[in-house]
Amino acid sequence: MSCIFCKIVNGELPSRKAYESETVVAFHDIVPQAPVHVIIVPKKHIDTMNEVETGTDDAVVAELFHAARQIARELGIAESGYRLVNNCNEDSGMEVSHLHIHLLGGRKLGAIVSSLGS
Amino acid sequence: MSCIFCKIVNGELPSRKAYESETVVAFHDIVPQAPVHVIIVPKKHIDTMNEVETGTDDAVVAELFHAARQIARELGIAESGYRLVNNCNEDSGMEVSHLHIHLLGGRKLGAIVSSLGS
Repeated sequence: MSCIFCKIVNGELPSRKAYESETVVAFHDIVPQAPVHVIIVPKKHIDTMNEVETGTDDAVVAELFHAARQIARELGIAESGYRLVNNCNEDSGMEVSHLHIHLLGGRKLGAIVSSLGS
Repeated sequence: MSCIFCKIVNGELPSRKAYESETVVAFHDIVPQAPVHVIIVPKKHIDTMNEVETGTDDAVVAELFHAARQIARELGIAESGYRLVNNCNEDSGMEVSHLHIHLLGGRKLGAIVSSLGS
């Protein structure tokens, strides 16, 4: 078990929690890219969005976004705005192979990808 | 009914479809930010992620991401990688107030937000 997010889920690594339910944990990113930067993960290890199974994992997906909405409200960025990002595999810059959603807000966030060609 | 995405859903405005199911439509963005840039929307009008109702809309949320996985596979970017982005309200740069997921891929995508302070 070397997955860093599984270690956070299991309490083997510390984190500053923003949300926890039966199936999902969210914690503040240690290298935040915005005033609010929370990582939302399923407790169950799923490598990437590609490995989410339609049907079986539908409730987990719904809960990830329920968590996002609730955290955004609790942290006061629901009305000002936020961005939810899921990266999958190399072109996206995905760094940890455990499905996760970035919740970012608290400032103007700029473009959703770097400029064309860069 | 002035929502541009509702008009695409209803066929009042043309689009190049990438996916359609009972509850979801996806179409190629007319100002793509990457070689693949598809917009995935629920047919039902929901303003933003904030207005998604836990329980009632869980199946719609699951179907949005089922569509994303299937489109990524069909367009050949599932393994090379892709990014899914949902913007909510002003700080995110959200431009159309009808819930939508951007599916981006086909090149290295860079940072998930603009640099801190910019």
